[in-house]
Amino acid sequence: MLSDAQLREYHDDGFVVVPEVLTSRDLARIRDEVERLYGADHPGRVLEKDGRTIRGVHGCHQTSELFSRLVRLPDLLESAEQLLASKVYVHQSKVNAKRALRGDVWPWHQDYIFWEREDGMPAPLVTNVALLLDDATPYNGPLLFVPGSHRMGTLSTERRRAAGGEESWKSNLAADLDYALTAEQLAALVARLGMRAATGAAGSMVLFDPRLVHGSGTNMSPYDRQLLIITYNSVDNVPQQVPSRRPEFLSASDTTPLAPLTGGLRP
Amino acid sequence: MLSDAQLREYHDDGFVVVPEVLTSRDLARIRDEVERLYGADHPGRVLEKDGRTIRGVHGCHQTSELFSRLVRLPDLLESAEQLLASKVYVHQSKVNAKRALRGDVWPWHQDYIFWEREDGMPAPLVTNVALLLDDATPYNGPLLFVPGSHRMGTLSTERRRAAGGEESWKSNLAADLDYALTAEQLAALVARLGMRAATGAAGSMVLFDPRLVHGSGTNMSPYDRQLLIITYNSVDNVPQQVPSRRPEFLSASDTTPLAPLTGGLRP
Repeated sequence: MLSDAQLREYHDDGFVVVPEVLTSRDLARIRDEVERLYGADHPGRVLEKDGRTIRGVHGCHQTSELFSRLVRLPDLLESAEQLLASKVYVHQSKVNAKRALRGDVWPWHQDYIFWEREDGMPAPLVTNVALLLDDATPYNGPLLFVPGSHRMGTLSTERRRAAGGEESWKSNLAADLDYALTAEQLAALVARLGMRAATGAAGSMVLFDPRLVHGSGTNMSPYDRQLLIITYNSVDNVPQQVPSRRPEFLSASDTTPLAPLTGGLRP
Repeated sequence: MLSDAQLREYHDDGFVVVPEVLTSRDLARIRDEVERLYGADHPGRVLEKDGRTIRGVHGCHQTSELFSRLVRLPDLLESAEQLLASKVYVHQSKVNAKRALRGDVWPWHQDYIFWEREDGMPAPLVTNVALLLDDATPYNGPLLFVPGSHRMGTLSTERRRAAGGEESWKSNLAADLDYALTAEQLAALVARLGMRAATGAAGSMVLFDPRLVHGSGTNMSPYDRQLLIITYNSVDNVPQQVPSRRPEFLSASDTTPLAPLTGGLRP
């Protein structure tokens, strides 16, 4: 369970870094499984602009037995339940690969607007649990946050491209987002709130609010910066019907409340 | 003059950051002049891949009266003379604009090989004096160094493209270099030597060895990270004739030893 100090940090800054959540053995298993997913043919597997470097994989908890158990690990699941004060399920899970020397930018954005506009999610009663699968350093494109920006509401409301087209979701997995902050919006925010990098050791957990403005730069280091993000949604916040649903690996239809795993990742 | 500790740092790490070299008044003048150069039509003016953001300008000391005086500022010129133990002239001068949110990567490379192979410079008796025209932070794509890598000699000796063609120099001003380190070379170096960012306040000076492995990432911040780099070469190290000379703004032919400026930037 999160301490009062950690809860306060999450509510004040919009994020909190919790070190040493994964054991080294679980971390090694997860990393092996991620490598397997990189190689598996699946529509949720996305490449960088170079057309050959893995950018990420989506829907991991739906395609991997290990990940379906991982999302039920008490340290993760119960933190999400605590933050949302309800039972939860996984709306989305993904790995951002941010490969050594090739991992590209994520422009500054808020997550919630995608889930609201594209998936019909009624309210921001949802949270991100990100697991550092590698050490995150100032050099390998760590998650960058504008602390406190989650309290500003939804900032970018204008869709950059027209909605529709059955594959319009694809560009939102690349470095080109439909809802990204403008330079002016970011400048005004950062002048007041500054920027912070979520650096930390592999095995740490970063909890962050769905409205927190975030992005990440290029990976200039010779080391990968892999990040597994599990988006837990409150069972009281199940998305409504939308005209053209995004694929299952972006907007999960199984909203059954999750029960904590007993006995660890591999019982 | 550089202190013994600063000289030792330069020789050990390949670079040293010297704070508060420019007065705020000189800094403001230089920044104004840089803005003017960004707008001036000149072949040494280079754009980012997006075709509209300024990436840099070259040959500033040749096209700007202010910059022709700046390169003679005693703090800069005498530091270079001290490091090279001789009189010096300017082989190259440039501004890296690294614009807010748009400034792109410089891949990991060493400078000297370009000057040796492309310009016929006989030896690495040359040094870079970089002036921070903006605060350099972890977020705006600061210069990144592999400390101590200058002692490894020349690492990337294979030209990625065939030489020749009167405009073959152009790609070396973009994010695509003829002599860049391979991922394997960088990984081996960084495993032994680590990485460091040359962060600091505007007005600081960063001296770095021509063989020091360096690069920089994207600028993820809403603030520019402009850097003025003056390359001082020893007058005992004047380039030899080469078959197809690069333009004057990349390889200056005026090798007259510089005399220190008296009375400041604007007397």
